[in-house]
Parts: sequence; structure tokens; C-alpha cells
Amino acid sequence: MKFQCNKNDLVQALQIVSRAVASKPQTPILSGIHLIAKGDTLEMEATDYEIGIVCRIDADIEQEGESVLSGRYLQEVSRNLPDSEIVFEQSAEEPTIHIRSGAANFTLLGMAARDFPGVRKIEEKVSFTIRNTALSKIVRKTSFSCSTDEARPIFTGCLMELAEESIKMVATNTHRLSLEEETLSSFSGQPQQSIVPARILGELMHTLSSEIPTDVVVKCNYNEISFSFDNIFLMSRLIEGQFPDYRRVIPTDFRTNVILKRTDFLAAVSRVSLIARSSEYNTIRLEFSDGKVHISSNNPEIGNAEETVTAAIDGPDIVIAFNAVYVNDVLKNMDSESFRFSMSEPLKPAMIREFEGDEAFLYVITPVKTH
Amino acid sequence: MKFQCNKNDLVQALQIVSRAVASKPQTPILSGIHLIAKGDTLEMEATDYEIGIVCRIDADIEQEGESVLSGRYLQEVSRNLPDSEIVFEQSAEEPTIHIRSGAANFTLLGMAARDFPGVRKIEEKVSFTIRNTALSKIVRKTSFSCSTDEARPIFTGCLMELAEESIKMVATNTHRLSLEEETLSSFSGQPQQSIVPARILGELMHTLSSEIPTDVVVKCNYNEISFSFDNIFLMSRLIEGQFPDYRRVIPTDFRTNVILKRTDFLAAVSRVSLIARSSEYNTIRLEFSDGKVHISSNNPEIGNAEETVTAAIDGPDIVIAFNAVYVNDVLKNMDSESFRFSMSEPLKPAMIREFEGDEAFLYVITPVKTH
Repeated sequence: MKFQCNKNDLVQALQIVSRAVASKPQTPILSGIHLIAKGDTLEMEATDYEIGIVCRIDADIEQEGESVLSGRYLQEVSRNLPDSEIVFEQSAEEPTIHIRSGAANFTLLGMAARDFPGVRKIEEKVSFTIRNTALSKIVRKTSFSCSTDEARPIFTGCLMELAEESIKMVATNTHRLSLEEETLSSFSGQPQQSIVPARILGELMHTLSSEIPTDVVVKCNYNEISFSFDNIFLMSRLIEGQFPDYRRVIPTDFRTNVILKRTDFLAAVSRVSLIARSSEYNTIRLEFSDGKVHISSNNPEIGNAEETVTAAIDGPDIVIAFNAVYVNDVLKNMDSESFRFSMSEPLKPAMIREFEGDEAFLYVITPVKTH
Repeated sequence: MKFQCNKNDLVQALQIVSRAVASKPQTPILSGIHLIAKGDTLEMEATDYEIGIVCRIDADIEQEGESVLSGRYLQEVSRNLPDSEIVFEQSAEEPTIHIRSGAANFTLLGMAARDFPGVRKIEEKVSFTIRNTALSKIVRKTSFSCSTDEARPIFTGCLMELAEESIKMVATNTHRLSLEEETLSSFSGQPQQSIVPARILGELMHTLSSEIPTDVVVKCNYNEISFSFDNIFLMSRLIEGQFPDYRRVIPTDFRTNVILKRTDFLAAVSRVSLIARSSEYNTIRLEFSDGKVHISSNNPEIGNAEETVTAAIDGPDIVIAFNAVYVNDVLKNMDSESFRFSMSEPLKPAMIREFEGDEAFLYVITPVKTH
């Protein structure tokens, strides 16, 4: 194997791929990144058996070949090389790889490429294409509601409901629930429900962060899901199990509907919750009346906080309390300037939706007892 | 107590003072910041018995008084207040403090000011005045050489030697030693030697980071040292014990003298040491000959690295090895473009000094065995 590539391209690709390198590898080979030089492309892949990431860059390939190098050292060395071009060379019989750039020469011990569990394309039952910005939005507005409790795996992922014309994503930790939907123009396969791990959705958002519009091809079967766009391929196992019927927990009748400015309310809630933060339930109390909402918190060991913001209230006055984190999270992830807060009774689930914005998005939040 | 002050002034001052708040307080009062409103000044102070920091800002004081508030909550609340002005008010009989800013109202439980161990001015035996930039430089170029091993406390501080015309600072962990010196124009007292904890020197560098020239007044007795400048006062206990005679470990005879470009050599050493880093002694090997230095490292589990940079060598060729960290540290903290590397034998201490730069600075580094 012998090839030359651009340093920045390589460093960027390694940064993406390395996120699939196992932090505590079950076997030494999983600490590596698999390099495959073929045609005019250098392909890099990593996997920890749960997720896999592949990234391709252009390379001048003098001799095709493959090798596996320590992900950590390959990344650190590449990042620190002096020149904008890098030459990789493997002597025929040794497993070591020579890396040259400017005056710097490195030799890294390689591992046998045949031992690497390759990241394979999946045989899809369903596939569709979606804009990166739309996919990013669905994921951002739902995945924060997932649970992190591994004891109940189905809540550590987002339910993805696919049908001919739409993708719907739902996440819940049983105390709050996010739902978002987008139309799909291209779809092939049968309607399907899958639970996609929050982890791969996090990696996806991370790599999708570019603002340049691009199409993402999503493929999915009963066990696996993959996302491909630009020169990147991500895949993950799906979570097995039955997601509860989320439709039953979405309330439909409300007595009090309030329109609030999102950033003003978010700032006030963030401040007031400073005092709530270390108390057991992290509770903020909301008192809606008289064209305003009075937000307060009380922590016997620290003190208390209160702030009032104006609100357009339609319906009877209500006093209701929430876990401040659940309110903060949704306010940070919405896009509209104003939002609608709909409540019925102090201990019944409330709903938050965008006002004059994204009509599909909804958020259900369970109150806590006020003191 | 009742006063009004500017939010930015307060936040900045609290950031400085809070560095003396005990992270694991021996008594609850040490988790607090002592506020003293008097005249037209708000004074804030914190101490963990080892160091103490006091900071003053202008304030409109309607009613003088004092209180102690949780350092953590005072800081978090202040930082998040909505308005540029903040009002603090304490009702006569309660220990709580009301904080108002814009629409936000906080009440924080106070602690009794009489229980707070105040940070007192020290009765000095020696005092002098020095430019912030000069003080900062002496500390930066020496304190990195201190040990972090609490088992031998004298090496966790810098020796400060004061005489009529100069301040000399020396730090060592017994494997390397830094020495820096500055002239003093104002000095009162008798020549004195003290060991100043690296911790207070770190805090000093942190608060001295401003580029605006100012004078620092340093006062010192047998147990304590203090630094005052602008609206800030820092103090610390000194380390007890006898610092070894550093003059005896500074070598004077060298056979090989090399002039090197600092940033080129630093970049090459940083790269080559990537491979050395996880090996037991973190060793890089330097081979000086033929108008260049060949830098190399070898780690049987990872691979090896080598790079060559040009060098002006005066004297016989030499092969010598060092802990890469000790070389990196000094190169990062020097100011000159070039430096002189002076060696005698592979296992005898070598010396690094600036070339056409700061003549007072010197660094002694003990080699390790080459393999």
C-alpha cells in the first residue's frame, strides 16, 4: 500500500470516523481505524459493533492495499504533521506503516486488516431520501427527550414511524414526550416502525452540522439503520422491543391556553431554576393569571427566586409546577419566536407547541406537585 | 445593608475572589464570600485558610453592612441577572439577602459575617514594588518547574530570593530547574528567602493576565506573602522548610553548545514525543551532529518517530536523551526566537538559555539513559 493525501481532508475524516472507535474495545482490533486505499479513494472505517462509520477522501494511490492503525495515534499524528500533504507507505511484508510529511517521519505498528469487522452496507427493507436540514431538525427536536436509563432500553431511542408520505419521530422518558414529523418525497418499501438509538442520532447531528444543503439516503431493515451523505456512511443497530402507544398520552382537551415569547420565558426560567437546581425535584412553580406568568422556585437550604413575564392567557387562571429541566430543554430546541402552553389541570399533562411556526412539533410534559 | 452596583464589575470581581473559596470547605462558612459594603466600596473576600483573595468595586451604598453568601450561588445568580444594575438589600433582622435586577428577584440565605475568617493585611518584614508584566514573566518562566508531589512540600513552591536590587525566583522538581531574575527599583527590608506555593503564583498569573501596565506591591514576612494591585489583594501562607542550594546544581562547563530556532525545535519535539508519550519515561533521543539535530522516539507497542532540524553546533557531536515533557515545557515558556542548548556528557545535566533574549533566565535539565 502506498498513497498520498491532503492533511486537512484526512484530519477531518478521521475526526468523524474516530467517533465509532470503541473507547473500551472488547478486542484490540476495535481500537483501530481500517484504511483501504483503492482506485483514487482512501476509505476509513471504524466500528464498536453497536455503530459503524465510514468516510472517504480523494487520494493519489500508487499501490492499493489496506491496514488497521490505532485510531488514537493515527489521529494524533495526522493532526500534528507539518506539511499539507502526507504520504502513507507499507512495505510488502511488514505490518507497519510509514507516514511522511515534511521533515517528519513516523512508523506506526499496524494490525491485520483481515481481522477487522468491516462496516457493511445493509440490505434494506425501506429506504428514503431526506434533506440534511430536515433530518437534523427532526432529530434535534425529539432526541433530547430520550431517557439515559439503560434499564429500559426502548426509551433510550427515538421511535421512527415511516409511511409513504411522512417520517414521524417520537421520544419520551415517560415524564415528557417530543413528536416531530416531516413529509417525504421519495420512499420505497412498506410502512415501518423502528426504535433508533439516541447515540447514532447524536453522531448524525454532529456530522450533519454543515449548513450546506445535501441529501441523506436512509436505509433500514428490521435490525439496522444506515445514513449516507456526501462521503460519509453511518450505521447502527436498532433497539428491539415494543414502543408504547404514544398517541394515548397526547392530551387533547385544554382549559387554559397561553401564548408566550420563547426567549424571554426561557431566560426567566433558566434564572429562577438556578435556585431549584439542587433540590430534589428541580421544581419551578408557574402561576398564570392577570396577563402574566409568575415563575418561582424555593430551596430551603439556599433561598428562593421569582420573576414575572407577560403572557397572553386564554382561559381560567392556573398554578402548575414542572421539573425545570424539562421546560428548559424544549424551549432551547424550538425555533419559533412564540409558543403556546396548553394546560387543563395542575396535575394533568400539559402541551407545548410552536406558535406561528413548525405546526407538526409537539411536546407533552407531566407536571409535578406544587408545595 | 443596601447597595447598588454594576453587574459586569460584580461578576468580574466574583470570578477572581471565588478562586479562594474552598472546594471542600472544612466549615460551611468557608464556602461563602464575605461582602462588606462601606463608604462607596463593595469589598468581597474569600479564603480557604491557605490563600485569601479580596476584591473591591465601586457601589452606591445606601446602608452600610456585611454578610456572607454561598460563593457558588452568588456567582451563578449574578452572572445570570437580566439588568446591568443590581440591588442588594438585607432586612435588619434577617440573615437573608434580597437581590433585584430587572424583573428578577432572588433571596439567598446569608451566613453570619462575624464567623468569617477575614483576609487581613499582613505585617511585612520586606516589601517591594514591581511591574505586573515583570512579575508575570518571572512566575511564568519558573513555576512550571515545580513538583506536584505533596510528599515533599518545598518543591511544590518557588524559592523567592529578595535582595536590595533584585528578585530571584527558582523552581525545581529535582529533575529540572528554572531560574529567573529581575532588578527591583523599590525595596524595603532585609534580604530574605521564602518558598512561595505554586498555587498562589498560579492564581497571581491568572489575575495578572491583563496587558495594561500596573504596579504590584508585594509584602512578605516569615509566614505569609501578599500581592496588591488595582482593586485586588491576594495572600498566601509560605511553605516552611529549607530549599536546597540550587547554585550547586547549575553546571558551568560545557563541551557542546548548540543554537536552535525555538518554534521549529518545539514543533518537532512535540510531534516526535507523540509516540514517546505513553512509554514509561516519555523519552526523546537527540543526536547532535553535522549541522543538525536528529530527534527520535521509540515505543515498542506503538511505533517510532523521527525528525531532523538544522542546528548551529559548536563542539563535539553528542547523543543525549530527555523526558520530552521537560523539554516541551521550557520551550513553550521562553520568549526569544532562538535558544542555546549546552551539554557536556550524555548523563550530565544540560542547560538551556535564551539566545539574544532574556539573559537572566536559565533552565537545567537532567538527561535520562538512551536505549
